[in-house]
Amino acid sequence: MTKVFDTELAELKERLLYMGGLVELMINLSIKSLVERNEDLGKDLYRQEDEVNRLQMEIDDRCIKLIALNQPAGSDLRFITSAMKINSELERMGDQAVNIIGAAKELLKFPQLKRLADIVLMANITKTMTKDCLDAFVRTDVGLAREVLLRDDKVDGLKDQIFRVLLTYMLAETRHIPVALELILISRHLERIGDHATNIAEDVIFLAEGRDVRHHGQENSAI
Amino acid sequence: MTKVFDTELAELKERLLYMGGLVELMINLSIKSLVERNEDLGKDLYRQEDEVNRLQMEIDDRCIKLIALNQPAGSDLRFITSAMKINSELERMGDQAVNIIGAAKELLKFPQLKRLADIVLMANITKTMTKDCLDAFVRTDVGLAREVLLRDDKVDGLKDQIFRVLLTYMLAETRHIPVALELILISRHLERIGDHATNIAEDVIFLAEGRDVRHHGQENSAI
Repeated sequence: MTKVFDTELAELKERLLYMGGLVELMINLSIKSLVERNEDLGKDLYRQEDEVNRLQMEIDDRCIKLIALNQPAGSDLRFITSAMKINSELERMGDQAVNIIGAAKELLKFPQLKRLADIVLMANITKTMTKDCLDAFVRTDVGLAREVLLRDDKVDGLKDQIFRVLLTYMLAETRHIPVALELILISRHLERIGDHATNIAEDVIFLAEGRDVRHHGQENSAI
Repeated sequence: MTKVFDTELAELKERLLYMGGLVELMINLSIKSLVERNEDLGKDLYRQEDEVNRLQMEIDDRCIKLIALNQPAGSDLRFITSAMKINSELERMGDQAVNIIGAAKELLKFPQLKRLADIVLMANITKTMTKDCLDAFVRTDVGLAREVLLRDDKVDGLKDQIFRVLLTYMLAETRHIPVALELILISRHLERIGDHATNIAEDVIFLAEGRDVRHHGQENSAI
């Protein structure tokens, strides 16, 4: 491949990382808005969402042009198709941050529950997963990618636990229903962020090893 | 392009359609299980999920090989990258059917609510969206794809309405809480099926017109 092609691949990586950084910011802002009951953070978040949406289209366009003009094969082609997938995952993670800040705004209508169940713990784990799956991508670090996969089980466990705790609140006190309901929905948005980070981690492993580790245990799977 | 390449593209389309048909079946089964309170349908659904997961990996693999060996450009390349995206959307729609049947199983622990709010209406619309986005893909029917986009607004409206109705049930009668909660989660799974159908419809428009209609109103958008 030509030097121009290499530069363009490096640029593609840069743009994806820039987009990933924005999505991390969006997730942080949405959680901050929930914990601090601060409505003003929404403006920044919506501006970032616009930028992420624009980047998604730009990156897809770059990928298609890179394939069309350079006809890559092997690991270069895998890199570009993985970039298209990661692009789509990142945009959806940003959507979840928008959902969380929307729910956080709803919650301002009600007095705060004493404890946010384990929502903050769950949020912290998904934030770390987001950061780590991107780091794993930059450094093609399969070990880190596998850690992200493991942490997804923890997130799913927390989701179930949060559901049980909040259901108990609702059954105990009718006035807790609207708040507990929004918190359950927030935990589902966080779960989805974890799922997207997991998908990115799987892409990183595919990129590094040329093996498809999705759907563990099925016949096409190499694990 | 060679005749072999054309045959392989036609095969790729066939496989995607076969996968789409399976996902439609999964959605139908999950709704049937909810409406008829029939737990036995789960076995079929889990078998189909395995098949869909296997197909997802097979189709991705076909796409990458098609690009690597034939170095397509223009509309052929767009078709293959769209196929990779549709592949991923379909697999996620199947995941939602699995989530719905899980929630339907939970509901068996409780007496049935008199009305499932507008869940069945919402399910019927998302089923039609699923069918239509695939038909639009087969026939490259931009008009039908645009209808799918419009129907997504209806689905979002129903989701909000169902939420309000079920919240009222919960506030009125504590014993309704667990059932209403599961139904709210089911409505969110249906919403996501609608979102995935919308994404596929957008891919069809991109494929037909070479224009990116995601994120309407943003600068890269052609609408």
